[in-house]
Amino acid sequence: MLTLYSMPSSGNSYKVRLLFAKLGIPFRHVAAEYGSGVTTSAEFRALNPHGRVPLVRFEDGRVLSESNAILLYFAEGTRFLPEDRFDQAKVHQWMFWEQNSHEATIAVRAAILSYEHRAGERRPEILDPLLDAGHRNLATMDVQLAKTPFLAGNSLSAADLCLYAYTHSAETRGGFDLSRFPAVSAWLARVEADAPHVPLSWLGDNPA
Amino acid sequence: MLTLYSMPSSGNSYKVRLLFAKLGIPFRHVAAEYGSGVTTSAEFRALNPHGRVPLVRFEDGRVLSESNAILLYFAEGTRFLPEDRFDQAKVHQWMFWEQNSHEATIAVRAAILSYEHRAGERRPEILDPLLDAGHRNLATMDVQLAKTPFLAGNSLSAADLCLYAYTHSAETRGGFDLSRFPAVSAWLARVEADAPHVPLSWLGDNPA
Repeated sequence: MLTLYSMPSSGNSYKVRLLFAKLGIPFRHVAAEYGSGVTTSAEFRALNPHGRVPLVRFEDGRVLSESNAILLYFAEGTRFLPEDRFDQAKVHQWMFWEQNSHEATIAVRAAILSYEHRAGERRPEILDPLLDAGHRNLATMDVQLAKTPFLAGNSLSAADLCLYAYTHSAETRGGFDLSRFPAVSAWLARVEADAPHVPLSWLGDNPA
Repeated sequence: MLTLYSMPSSGNSYKVRLLFAKLGIPFRHVAAEYGSGVTTSAEFRALNPHGRVPLVRFEDGRVLSESNAILLYFAEGTRFLPEDRFDQAKVHQWMFWEQNSHEATIAVRAAILSYEHRAGERRPEILDPLLDAGHRNLATMDVQLAKTPFLAGNSLSAADLCLYAYTHSAETRGGFDLSRFPAVSAWLARVEADAPHVPLSWLGDNPA
C-alpha cells in the first residue's frame, strides 16, 4: 500500500487526499502536522531533503513530493487529466499558476491567520498586500470560470482539485471576500457536487 | 509562426527562449519588459487576464501561459522529457518546486536588487529571510545533484532548464553564495555545455 505523509490542516496535502478518495486509491496516512516533528526527523529528511509534505512513498521505496506532481502522476489515464496535448497543457498552466501566484497569496494569508506559530506576521504591511494580490488571483479565476465550467474547460480536472484546496477556505481562513467572484463561488459548488467528495478533515481509512 | 511574448531580463521568460533555441523552434519575439506597457495593454489582458509573461500565441490564436507549462508542452516527445511515467513525475516535482520554493526566494531577491521600481523593498527584514530561504533551496538542489548529474536523473530535462534560468544568475543578481554548493556549480557548467546553449540576452531571430 502507498504511504501518504500529509498535513491534516494543509490545502496542499488535502488536494492529494481528495484525488485519492475520488480514485479509490487506498493509502496508509502518516499525519505530519506543524510541530509534530515528523518532517524535521532524520527519517523524513532522507525521503525529502526539502522537508515538506505531502509526500508519497510507494511500496518499492520510491518517493514523490510536491502536491501537484503527485496529482498529475495519479491523474494520468483517469477522467482528471485530458488526453489531448494542448488540453493537458492548460491543466498544467493552471497548476503552475496555483503554486506560484495563488498559493503564495491565498494560502499564505490563511496560514498567517490560522497558525499560532505565525501570529507574529499578523501585521497590516504583510496581510494587506496578500489580501489585494489574493483578490486579483480570484478575479483571474473568475474571468475563466465565467467562460468555462471548469478551469481547463468543460471537465473537472486535476487543475480544479488543485485550486479548490485553498480556494474553498479562502473566506473562512484567509478573510477573502468570495461574494465578489460569483463564477468562483458557483465553481466551488460544482467541484463539491462531483462525487465522491471528501472534506479537508478526511485523512483516509488507514492511519499509520 | 509562434509568437512569444517574453521579458528580456526575466528568468521565467529565458527558460522558454532557451528551450526554443535547443529545439530549433522559430518564433516571433515580442519584448515585454517592465514598464514597456505591453502586459498592461487591453490586447494583452485579453490573452492573459493575469497579465504575466511568458506567453505563447499559436498561429491559430490559442494561447498558453506559465513558463513551466510552456516548457512541458514543447518538451513532450523530445529528449527534454522522459517517457517513463515516474521519471516524468520527477521532472514535474522539480518544476513545481521551482515555482513555489525556488522562484519565490531566489528570483524575488534578484528582482528586488536589480529592478529600480523595487528599490523600496531593499530592506534587511525583506532581503535577509530571502537570502536564508534561497540558500536552503540551493542546498536542496545540491543534495540531489551530488547523487545524479541532472535534477531528475541521468539526462538533462525540462526540470534543469527551468531551474537553470534563475540559478545561473543567483550570485550575480541575487547575492547568493554559490561557492557553498559545489554540486550546483558543477551542474550549471553541465547545463551550459549542452549544445546549443544561448544566454539570457538571446531573444531569437525574429523580433516583432
